[in-house]
Formats: sequence, C-alpha cells, structure tokens
Amino acid sequence: MRAYAELSPSPRSIMTPGPVEVDPRVLRALSYPILGQFDPEFTALMNDTMEMLRLVFRTDNRWAYPVDGTSRSGIEAALTSLIEPGDKVLVPIYGRFGHLLHEIAERCGAEVVTLEQAWGRVFDPADIADAIRRERPQLVAVVHGETSTGRVQPLDGIGAACRETDALLVVDAVATLGGMPVETDAWQLDAVVGGSQKCLSVPSGMAPITYNARAEAKILARKRVERGLRVPGMANLEPAEGRRFIQSNYLDLAQLQDYWSAARLNHHTEMTCMLYGLREGLRIALQEGLEARWARHRRHEAALVAGLEAMGMRLFGDSSCKMAVVTCVEIPEGIDGESVRAMLLSMFGIEIANSFGPLKGRIWRIGTMGYSCRRDNVLRLLGAFEAVLARHGASVKTGAAVQAALDVYEAGEIE
Amino acid sequence: MRAYAELSPSPRSIMTPGPVEVDPRVLRALSYPILGQFDPEFTALMNDTMEMLRLVFRTDNRWAYPVDGTSRSGIEAALTSLIEPGDKVLVPIYGRFGHLLHEIAERCGAEVVTLEQAWGRVFDPADIADAIRRERPQLVAVVHGETSTGRVQPLDGIGAACRETDALLVVDAVATLGGMPVETDAWQLDAVVGGSQKCLSVPSGMAPITYNARAEAKILARKRVERGLRVPGMANLEPAEGRRFIQSNYLDLAQLQDYWSAARLNHHTEMTCMLYGLREGLRIALQEGLEARWARHRRHEAALVAGLEAMGMRLFGDSSCKMAVVTCVEIPEGIDGESVRAMLLSMFGIEIANSFGPLKGRIWRIGTMGYSCRRDNVLRLLGAFEAVLARHGASVKTGAAVQAALDVYEAGEIE
Repeated sequence: MRAYAELSPSPRSIMTPGPVEVDPRVLRALSYPILGQFDPEFTALMNDTMEMLRLVFRTDNRWAYPVDGTSRSGIEAALTSLIEPGDKVLVPIYGRFGHLLHEIAERCGAEVVTLEQAWGRVFDPADIADAIRRERPQLVAVVHGETSTGRVQPLDGIGAACRETDALLVVDAVATLGGMPVETDAWQLDAVVGGSQKCLSVPSGMAPITYNARAEAKILARKRVERGLRVPGMANLEPAEGRRFIQSNYLDLAQLQDYWSAARLNHHTEMTCMLYGLREGLRIALQEGLEARWARHRRHEAALVAGLEAMGMRLFGDSSCKMAVVTCVEIPEGIDGESVRAMLLSMFGIEIANSFGPLKGRIWRIGTMGYSCRRDNVLRLLGAFEAVLARHGASVKTGAAVQAALDVYEAGEIE
Repeated sequence: MRAYAELSPSPRSIMTPGPVEVDPRVLRALSYPILGQFDPEFTALMNDTMEMLRLVFRTDNRWAYPVDGTSRSGIEAALTSLIEPGDKVLVPIYGRFGHLLHEIAERCGAEVVTLEQAWGRVFDPADIADAIRRERPQLVAVVHGETSTGRVQPLDGIGAACRETDALLVVDAVATLGGMPVETDAWQLDAVVGGSQKCLSVPSGMAPITYNARAEAKILARKRVERGLRVPGMANLEPAEGRRFIQSNYLDLAQLQDYWSAARLNHHTEMTCMLYGLREGLRIALQEGLEARWARHRRHEAALVAGLEAMGMRLFGDSSCKMAVVTCVEIPEGIDGESVRAMLLSMFGIEIANSFGPLKGRIWRIGTMGYSCRRDNVLRLLGAFEAVLARHGASVKTGAAVQAALDVYEAGEIE
C-alpha cells in the first residue's frame, strides 16, 4: 500500500462563517481517553452538557442536548420528528438555508408554503405573523441567522402568532447561537437548533437542540419503541391512534430523549470525544458570559467593518439586519473572487468564504465567530486582504484599513 | 452559574463490544487544529480516507466514505437511500441488531419479511438464500457480527442469490470491520456499513460505508438536487419517472457522494476532527495489516477463552459461529450480573457489558476489539474477574485463569 502521510495540518486563520478555529482547550478535551457510554462518569458529563445547553439557549426547557451529527442533522431531527406527512409547513425564505428548510420539510412529507424575500434583506416579522394567521400551518420553520447572505431575521411576534394558531415554531439558530442573542423562552420558540462549529467554536459533529413541552407533546404522540428494545408490559409501543411514526430512527427525538433521560434507553453510541469537546466549548462560553460574548462579537465586527470601508470596499445587503458574526463584501467589478480567496489561503494562511446561488461570484463572506473572532485575526485579515486586492489590480485605498480598525480598538471598551 | 469541573476522565480498560479504547495516535490526531472543509489540504485528507476505506472494506468500489454520525446513521443512510416505500425487504434476525434493521426498514416504508433464529445461533446461509429465491425481495439486510449474542453470520451464497433475483444485499459489519474478515467484493455485498468505535478503535461519530454500482444505480434513480443548490441547466433535478426521492436529506447517499466527489457539492460541514481520527485509525489498521490484525484478534480471543474456561465459566452460544471479537459468558445462577460489572468498573477500572432483551441478566459480554484487544487487558481482566466473582460468592476455580491465558500466550506465535 502507499504510505499515507503523518497528519500535519497547516496553521490557518479561519475567517469564514464556519467551521471556524477551535479553542485550544476544546482541542485538548477532544484528545482525552474515552469512557464507555454508560459509565457513570460519562453520563455525568452528558448531564453537565444538558445543563449548560439550557443556559446557552436561554431556556428552562427540560430537553436540551446534542444530536449526533452535523448541524443539518439537528435541523432534520427537529423537522422529521415534528412534521407528520400532510402537515402544512410555512417557510419564509431569504437565503440558501431557508431553501434547505423547504427541502427537508418536503422530504418529511409536508405541504410546504413559502414566503420569499430578496437575498440580502429579511422579512418584516409582522408579515410572517400575518402569513401564519392566514395560512394556519401546523409548523413554521425559519432561519435566524442566514449565513449565505449575512442577514439576521428579527423574530418578534412570530412566536405569539404561532401560539395563537396552534402552530409549532422551529428556528435554525445554527449560525447565531453563542455569538448573538438567541432567546428561546422569551421569544416563544418551540424548537431551536444550534451549531457547534460556528460561534461555539467546537468542531463540526454535533448539533445542539432544545424544544419545549408543546413540541414534546407532538413527538410523544408519534413515539414508537424500537423493535429489539420492547419488553413485556412496556407502555406506548406504537404511536397514538391516527398518528404516524417518525420516519427516521437515527434522528427520532422521541428515542433520543429517552437516551438522554435517566432511563438511558439504548439508542446510538454517544460520540465520546465530540461530547468532551462540546462540553468544554460550553464551559468556555459560559465562563466568558453570554452578554460579554455577544459584545465581543459586535466589537470585532465594528473594527472589521471600519477597516473594510476605509479600504473602499462595499458591504453587501441591508445594513439594518446585518449579522454581527458575518460580513459580506461585494466583489469589485473585474476581480476574480476565487483567485483572491486562493491567494489569501495559500500565501497568508487566511480563509474567507464565497457564497451560493444568486450570490455566487458576487460576494465574499467574512466570518468573525467564536475563537476566530479575535483582534489579531481581524487586523491580519485586513492587511492581507488589502495586499491581495492590490495584487489583483483592484482599486483599493492602501494603508487605511488597519489604521481604521486600530482606531476602533483604541476608542475604548474593546479588549 | 455553577462551576463545571475540568474534564478529567478516569483511566479505563474498556472490554465491551464497543466503544473501546482509542489508540493514542488517534487521540492525538483528534486534537490537531482544524482546516476548512474545502481547504485543499483537507479535501486531500478526505481522499486519503476514501482510498484507505476501500482497502479495509476489500473492495474496488468507487464509493467508500464515512457517513457523519454514529454507526446506525450509516445503516439508516444505506437503507433509506436504497429502500423505496413499498419495497419488499428480507431481514434475517438472530439478535438485537437484526431487529434494528427491521425497525429502520419499516420506517423507510418497506414491506418487511423476517426470518428468525434463536439468540445464540445463526442461520444456515443456504436457508437465507432459499428465502431470497422464494420471497424475491428488492433488498436483503443482514447483520454480519451480532454483538448482542456474540455470533457471526456466514454469508456464502447469499450474494449470489441476490444477484440471481436482482435484490440488493446490505450488510451491517459495524462490529466486524477491522477485526474479522469482511470481503465486500468477494462476497458480492452491495452495500456494507462499518463502525468506527469497535475494531477500528476510533471514537464513535463516523460510520464508514461502501456500495457498488448496483446500489448506486438505485440511488441515482432517486436523486433529487437540493433546493438552494439548483442552478440553471443542471441535469436530473428530480428522481426518474415513477421513482420516489430519498426521504432523508442528511442521510441521502446521492448527496453525500456528490460531496465526496471531485465536485464537492455542498451538503453538510464535514466533521474535521473526527475525519482526522478516522484517517489515523485506518492508517494504523493498514500499517498493522488486515490479516495480521484479524490474527491478533483470534489470538487474544484464544487466551481469554482459555482463561474463562479454566475459571469454570460457561460460554454462551453456539461455538461454531462465535465472533472472535466478542465473548459471551453465562452469569452463574444466583449471581447479580450488574453488581459484578459495577465492582469491576469501580474497583478495577475495567468495563464489560451486559446484554439486551432475552439475554438481559443472563450473560455478560466481553469485547476484545481494536486497541483494547491487548495481552495486558486480557490478563488483567481475567485476574480481576476471578476476584470479583469470588467476592460475590460465585463458585469459581481460583488461580487458574491467568495461568491458562499465559500458557496460550507462551505457546507461540502470540505477540
């Protein structure tokens, strides 16, 4: 066989909207020797993780735990567990990940009604609330922070409209959890899915999720106990009369919550090292404090934006709904965006992102998330970006960007 | 908030049928800083992993890659991608994980026909082949190594019967891959799912999978390009006439293979650190050599069995189909099996497993898998097990077990 090289990844500043750099404390946690999945020491770590997730999601929900897969596994777990075939589902779409919600809901057998908004803008939340009252869907699925366009959708009033019409509200907060406010209980969100590899700075591999009693009631009505685990006398082996069992076994929240409960009913084998990493990432976030963490993300955004504007770059999208953790930059006329990205990566070790669909080739996306959201990263990126743009013949004001960012940092209350 | 303790897991000898101890080289690989998912350095590591998986699965299949989830995510990915609602599926069941195949196939909308065998035995493969010719299912799903009972199902002739009747053969080799022969091509298996946390000694979190052109043809007929990734002029946006799209997005092999192809069509965010770990685990397995690795598992099994028998313990199940990597021991009359397990764990730091369903409370299961399959582990377990059994008042011959195992090790060709 051919010899496969010793693993030796190059150092990178990862300034994309995820995955981003991982805190060294998390990297170290990943490398601890494993424990068995039902070892009392390990189940105690699982319980710690649930408690910390409740704090990060700002909820008193009983259920808050990771789904064992990447972020979209959490989204699919929520949708496949909460959508019965034939359910009407309303999806407001303002970027790529809204289309993903539409896609997944259809695969769950939903009759999907969409609202569409131009990429770069968001909805007036009152318009979504009106649509809920008009369409009366069983479920509403909406993206909170849309990384494809760098926009954040205000959610006020949407939860109330869902309660009024008896709809469930599922929110994709993959890109915002840990970097921007996500108020599960205050905003009346019924199920929320976060991401590990974005503002929490844990590697991709787990999808934190929370859901309330309204969501749980629907899940339990559809619960089916797995063949091979049924024992005589066990209650509720099959879904309630007229209800359809959840079409996935792996992403079945009824089974996952039994696994995460004191009963520890066997399901998958929990991802030991990823759980170590998520737990450590949550510890770090809570030690910093959520409000302080959100403020940190806003400060580095301010420095980045000041630098980009001083350079003469144009930011993409409606500024009133810009995500603090993603900054979209228009690619100047005549410049090859992929060539700029490749040079940043190969010569400077800095990664930024392109975008999707209608924005492909039109914008770059710069992430300032989690452990990557640091002064040294912002300053080095600005200097490198300016140099690479100049090297590509772009009309760029030189020497101003880093100074503008330093001005922001020195103006105060910046770490 | 309350202070969550610094991570500090106790040392463990994990002698269960998975998860098992992880090679320190893999633990170290997990802790390397991450690369972006489309960074050329990272995609090169993904390609290495595909090449090595082909070697470990003993196949020339184009497709061999990990599904991002625990082992059952790989099983569900295979079944949900290959079963269309209404398909007839044949599942021979001889333990808990056969019931799981039945369960998942039903959730995919299959009409499931089962064969059942007593726990502790396996099928004559000719009986399975006869059932295939009689029932003419679209798909046959069978467990190769059934850890719940410690048995291995011979597969000879089953692949041929499937080709003859145009059925697809899906094999759950979660517990055998890397520890016992799994011959994907020679045995004419259409799709095979392995496990990371068993004989490959990587933490739980990825499910290696391979499938051939017969399986791929069915997947492609059902392919649907994700909304949000569709671009003008793209071919085959929807399944072929009369075919039903795959009901999962996350576990859709049509999308996963595009992500793992040179096109790198965006899907999930690959689990960076887990991929590092899997790649290192595969490197270790191939450096040892598969045949040498299988032989190592047989040798330590021989020492363990000699020790247990010298102690006077009775092994469970038909010895002609015993898995080399799992040894099932009958719990003596009047002994509390869970108390024995708890004492082994708390006083000796050694973990063994209980079992499920009809075998719950009747047997212990001892794994000798991957990095846990070592002489020091076998010898320490035998000494500790004897002491704990004596402490529980079991009638056990003392002083003989470790000597018997040492005899096996000293008899030759044992490392």
